[in-house]
Amino acid sequence: MKLKIAVLPGDGIGPEITQQSVKVLKAVADRFDHHFQFEDALVGAAAIDLLNNPLPEATLELCKKSDAVLFGAIGHPKYDNNPDAKVRPEQGLLQLRKGLGLFANIRPVKAYDKLIEQSPLKADRITGADMVIYRELTGGIYFGDKFTAEDGQSATDVCTYSVEEISRMAHLAFKAAQQRSKKLTLVDKANVLETSRLWRKTVTKIGEEYPDVALDFLFVDNAAMQMILNPTQFDVILTENMFGDILSDEASVIGGSIGLLASASVGKENAMFEPIHGSYPQATGKGIANPVASILSAAMLLEHFGLVEEAEAVKKAVELSIKLNVCTIDINKDNHYTTEKVGDFLEGLIS
Amino acid sequence: MKLKIAVLPGDGIGPEITQQSVKVLKAVADRFDHHFQFEDALVGAAAIDLLNNPLPEATLELCKKSDAVLFGAIGHPKYDNNPDAKVRPEQGLLQLRKGLGLFANIRPVKAYDKLIEQSPLKADRITGADMVIYRELTGGIYFGDKFTAEDGQSATDVCTYSVEEISRMAHLAFKAAQQRSKKLTLVDKANVLETSRLWRKTVTKIGEEYPDVALDFLFVDNAAMQMILNPTQFDVILTENMFGDILSDEASVIGGSIGLLASASVGKENAMFEPIHGSYPQATGKGIANPVASILSAAMLLEHFGLVEEAEAVKKAVELSIKLNVCTIDINKDNHYTTEKVGDFLEGLIS
Ligand SMILES: CC(C)[C@H](C(=O)O)[C@@H](O)C(=O)O
Ligand SMILES: CC(C)[C@H](C(=O)O)[C@@H](O)C(=O)O
Repeated sequence: MKLKIAVLPGDGIGPEITQQSVKVLKAVADRFDHHFQFEDALVGAAAIDLLNNPLPEATLELCKKSDAVLFGAIGHPKYDNNPDAKVRPEQGLLQLRKGLGLFANIRPVKAYDKLIEQSPLKADRITGADMVIYRELTGGIYFGDKFTAEDGQSATDVCTYSVEEISRMAHLAFKAAQQRSKKLTLVDKANVLETSRLWRKTVTKIGEEYPDVALDFLFVDNAAMQMILNPTQFDVILTENMFGDILSDEASVIGGSIGLLASASVGKENAMFEPIHGSYPQATGKGIANPVASILSAAMLLEHFGLVEEAEAVKKAVELSIKLNVCTIDINKDNHYTTEKVGDFLEGLIS
Repeated sequence: MKLKIAVLPGDGIGPEITQQSVKVLKAVADRFDHHFQFEDALVGAAAIDLLNNPLPEATLELCKKSDAVLFGAIGHPKYDNNPDAKVRPEQGLLQLRKGLGLFANIRPVKAYDKLIEQSPLKADRITGADMVIYRELTGGIYFGDKFTAEDGQSATDVCTYSVEEISRMAHLAFKAAQQRSKKLTLVDKANVLETSRLWRKTVTKIGEEYPDVALDFLFVDNAAMQMILNPTQFDVILTENMFGDILSDEASVIGGSIGLLASASVGKENAMFEPIHGSYPQATGKGIANPVASILSAAMLLEHFGLVEEAEAVKKAVELSIKLNVCTIDINKDNHYTTEKVGDFLEGLIS
């Protein structure tokens, strides 16, 4: 297979981890006789520094004409504590999601047996946890109008959802549930929010088309508690943009490290693959960042194009590396490997 | 001291747990020679059933002319899955908060040594955790405009915050931090939301008036993760309404049971005390609900009126009951006491 992959390393640890997944993808191409062509582009703080634009036109164009985007991370502390900044790195990511129509963000979470010790949660709570979060990615309060009153005395963010936005997500999530344990949990705040009531109504109706999937509902506050109390109850979680952002970061504790969690963002025509962790500025350039989340995102990329055997090879390699403790410091405290060494090891296993 | 206390048992387990805290407050009054006068009123689904109004005028009036409100719980499953319901129990609670001007919700969370075993989190993570969440309670997306488009094809919730709303919360939280470990963490999503940027800007500015308090910031997704990874890092958490709702339920796992978490909601003129758990319909009438969250809320009521020794007596009694395992089934699996028996035991200790 021929694939044109846009590589957007971004900020912080983005470049160093993305480098490892490119390495792994190259090894896959070699071994399975594919032709993957990589092209880099600027995004985020890196792009602001050079072009004063977190998503340069050329970057968006490249992504549009590529088959897939491999994304690193975005964000820089110098913008976080400056509420008056007009241009911010995160806009690059949000514009990219919107520009490519990536409405569904898919975040698998599971407890690796070997890492159960690492988790802040007790083993009996998380053993067997295996869920996937379907987070709506181009709607809701992230993309509604936002403004500050002229006198600076108040600010507003608007959250809107349409039946159409909810439906396309719901179909994806129900289909995923059919392939898994046939259980779908909609997380919302229908006792307070009008948008949540539209979610509940729309998803309930669509559920009639999937009679083999058991649908249930949780308020987001309760879900945030249940995620820790009893994570094995979940199979597919469907939720809106902001709740998905919060719950998926929270769920990362189940796996023992946020450095393991991959995601795919898909739309009608484009697809992007990115770790769920951020730019982790404190770790930048130190060789301590875990490349596995990015590498597993690359595995999701392979799966997305039907390269199932290839994706399995990557996932197996990751599992073996964890088993053998060839891991960065977030997982292997005593005798850790560097970002690059982990990448090399996985590349070697696949080649 | 003379106190007029409005008692709003509400729905589900609300009545049975509230009964226990009234019992405990009566024991306090007897022992310390106070005069507490209690008057019941309807709210929530119970009020809808009788008067088709989740917050009858008479209830609001009673609350306004009382010194404090003791609130049970609200919510009934028959409304949760009916997105078209025009009247819902939760409106009663929200209107009450708004009607009484209860803008600050204060939720203490701590790990009781005796219960560390109960927590889904490993002991080394939670030992010593002791924080208090200051949740804004009458603003944000809970109280903004909310509407469904005429064609039913989309819905909207508006989130607005004013400098004034943020400021009065911030002052309370900074003052609380001064009385504690002098650390305040603002949780927001300033990389995405305009309202969050106003929070960050306003709180930063107010922070200059409290130079002895260390102020830091966390994005809500990261906070949801940190709450589990490393809860002892937190002292006072300040946040907006929806984030506070999610984070405080999540934080309940630290204590080992949501049945332990109390809250105070305060405004300029009124104050209300309620457990953070909900109406827990599955448990209603079975005598298995934990009354401690409500009883500790009553202790917060006492504290609010400067009755420090009295509040201490209640908290000490609770601690002893936990130590002796005189607990409901959420905590004491093998040999549990009923809701009423726990209430009786605490009443006895105080008398
Ligand atoms: C960087 C930020 C804008 C982003 C989000 O909130 O969506 C990140 O937290 C994520 O989850 O991908
Ligand atoms: C019942 C509901 C409206 C309420 C809220 O979301 O505020 C509850 O969850 C709480 O935290 O007190």
